[in-house]
Amino acid sequence: MDTKQPDSFFKKKISRRKMLKYSGAGILGVVIGATGLGSIANTLGYSIVEDDMTVTDKIPFFGKSQSGIKTEVQKHIYFASINVIVQSKTELEQLFKEWTPLAVRMMNGQQIEEPATNAYIAAKDTGEAVGLSASNLSLTFGVGPSLFRKSELGLERVKPKELEKLPHFPKDQLDDSYSDGDLCIQACADDPQVAFHAVRNLIRAASGKVTLKWTQAGFNSFPVNNNKKQTPRNLFAFKDGTGNPNVKNTSEMKDIVWIQPGESVPWMVGGTYLVARRIQMHLETWDRTALGEQEATFGRHRDSGAPIGKTKELDDMELTRTDSAGKPIVPITSHVHLAKQVKDRMLRRSFSYSSGIDPKTGVFDSGLLFISFQKQPKQFINIQNSLGRVDKLNEYITHRGSAIFACFPGIQKGSYIGETLFKA
Amino acid sequence: MDTKQPDSFFKKKISRRKMLKYSGAGILGVVIGATGLGSIANTLGYSIVEDDMTVTDKIPFFGKSQSGIKTEVQKHIYFASINVIVQSKTELEQLFKEWTPLAVRMMNGQQIEEPATNAYIAAKDTGEAVGLSASNLSLTFGVGPSLFRKSELGLERVKPKELEKLPHFPKDQLDDSYSDGDLCIQACADDPQVAFHAVRNLIRAASGKVTLKWTQAGFNSFPVNNNKKQTPRNLFAFKDGTGNPNVKNTSEMKDIVWIQPGESVPWMVGGTYLVARRIQMHLETWDRTALGEQEATFGRHRDSGAPIGKTKELDDMELTRTDSAGKPIVPITSHVHLAKQVKDRMLRRSFSYSSGIDPKTGVFDSGLLFISFQKQPKQFINIQNSLGRVDKLNEYITHRGSAIFACFPGIQKGSYIGETLFKA
Repeated sequence: MDTKQPDSFFKKKISRRKMLKYSGAGILGVVIGATGLGSIANTLGYSIVEDDMTVTDKIPFFGKSQSGIKTEVQKHIYFASINVIVQSKTELEQLFKEWTPLAVRMMNGQQIEEPATNAYIAAKDTGEAVGLSASNLSLTFGVGPSLFRKSELGLERVKPKELEKLPHFPKDQLDDSYSDGDLCIQACADDPQVAFHAVRNLIRAASGKVTLKWTQAGFNSFPVNNNKKQTPRNLFAFKDGTGNPNVKNTSEMKDIVWIQPGESVPWMVGGTYLVARRIQMHLETWDRTALGEQEATFGRHRDSGAPIGKTKELDDMELTRTDSAGKPIVPITSHVHLAKQVKDRMLRRSFSYSSGIDPKTGVFDSGLLFISFQKQPKQFINIQNSLGRVDKLNEYITHRGSAIFACFPGIQKGSYIGETLFKA
Repeated sequence: MDTKQPDSFFKKKISRRKMLKYSGAGILGVVIGATGLGSIANTLGYSIVEDDMTVTDKIPFFGKSQSGIKTEVQKHIYFASINVIVQSKTELEQLFKEWTPLAVRMMNGQQIEEPATNAYIAAKDTGEAVGLSASNLSLTFGVGPSLFRKSELGLERVKPKELEKLPHFPKDQLDDSYSDGDLCIQACADDPQVAFHAVRNLIRAASGKVTLKWTQAGFNSFPVNNNKKQTPRNLFAFKDGTGNPNVKNTSEMKDIVWIQPGESVPWMVGGTYLVARRIQMHLETWDRTALGEQEATFGRHRDSGAPIGKTKELDDMELTRTDSAGKPIVPITSHVHLAKQVKDRMLRRSFSYSSGIDPKTGVFDSGLLFISFQKQPKQFINIQNSLGRVDKLNEYITHRGSAIFACFPGIQKGSYIGETLFKA
């Protein structure tokens, strides 16, 4: 890196377009493996590409944990569930090797190949993110229970015993078109086109090896107060994510999210489980409900996000508070009361979705792409069972999709996505 | 307005949350009609609410033309096509009267009612935009041909003769679930939740009077260069919107977009026609196509957006250029060449969409929510017919939805949406 360049030169957002220009001058600390990137799609090798931390709106790819888990939640998601059609573990491993440098480059805000100049072949990058910045793109990869049932892959013996299809919960009305999958790619970014571009290019690089099972786009809108992002509201207008573990608190994250040695199969140490639930919200019914009833349903005030009877979002919930008649102030059938009845916790990282209308009923097909991370699926299962049949919120929502994926531990420089699984 | 306040106080983005706080102090120039807003939903009257131009990220509601047409295109759209189930013209007129102050308030970045304090009734505003800024929300209202066929409304005699369902074009594969509609609401904003919130609250206020026919969310991502927004790319990676009329050129807009006296029925003078086409892009096929072939398909270079053989996006197309062999440099079957074969022009204002996968084929259900404005439907029809069967782009796209709406002229202060139609 040319140290004579002022700091501000490196710290500004560098778009895919400018990156191209600058990297030609060799002044950025981006190291590209000797095989070159042009050959990636054609060979079964993989190149080492490094995080370029001179880009300000950039999330590191390499590290102790995968991106998109403890990463500050972005504005957009494009979530893809994928089935694999490869016939061997080696082919699958190869796919992850090929995906690795592509993921690093896209998270750097670069194209897979730039510039696209050969008119006689298809461009390696689909190009719709040309000129857009890295946009805090994160990419999270995981494997579902069905992958381990494919005998041709020979992965049965390394399946973590806790990685099983989630049980049927009371009031689930699951649709296979929004459920399960052999693999997942969670692409989150502050720009919807950057998130979509990432999934599209990874799927394209896997042509003939995978099929799309289901995908879902989603968004989060952050109120800003004194230049600080506030907790976003879901489409029921309630703040979603209050009371999450503090991702900067290492011991809390170890307790709740990151699998520790001895807690699962060795290849999952440092990894976590992703639960995805496509939850349709019955907005029309909700909107006819009195404000007090809505607040009693969540256990919080709508506009402030405060626990019922309190004034600030972060005020202590104090579930045991009672009114003068001895009645609990936070109703015992409220969502928050029931969720806190079990000691289990999880890291929620959800996005709203608005996907047209439900053709059967003519109502909005809108709701929440609920995503949570926990080191044991039973954390989610216990909480969901506690919500069970009594959660007042059940009247207003229907779970339409469900999936679980084992997310690999972080990828080290020189390694590739999922190496711990393939070396297990 | 308290003139002692410094300019900066008024010029910063004021969120729905802060607006509430400030308006309590009476320092904003927002005038609310004497009937009060609380009573809107309960009465058949309508209140006068004014644009609050102290909010910086705010588009005016009142004016010569409706918002969302010449408005600089935003990042997000939520488009709703609606059927009406009212039984009389008076009821329909009343609906538009009720919608007017709601639209103005939401475009001001305000809630319909704030704060929501009565626990015993449903809140008037659904609340998910609390704390979010006005986000340059625009709302565009139009009426489709089917509205005039409803004899109970008695509007047949004022139907503009040119307002007819669009003809079937070569290669159309239209789906009724993405086509037509009695009314449309085009909500565009720089925040997806603000756009969705606007449609949801208007639909809710029309409960029992309308049903949703179809809706579609979409997005635009703007490369930024020297702090200037560049032309966004569609999902084929080509810049979309180059060569649009200059919305600031009054005579160009009169020629292309705004209906002049004598050019249609009197109630449409100052209005325009909105054409919406849900165009699925076959990304997988496109991505297998050589770059040169893609560029020959559009007639432009992909990354720069320049006409073929030129270097800059805004370089003159010069369709008549030939190579040394006398062959046209811009292929005569390219999209841009065919579109320019007819003298007709239109104002394009499209958004990309990524709506999961096509369940029948497993490919991305992604593409373009094409939207254009023109003062005569035949402008769009002529161009689309010129593209006809020969457009090279046809191989890569399928038109799945189609609709046309007559968009009213601008709404004047004290008037209401669609008044010219109801007074016709």
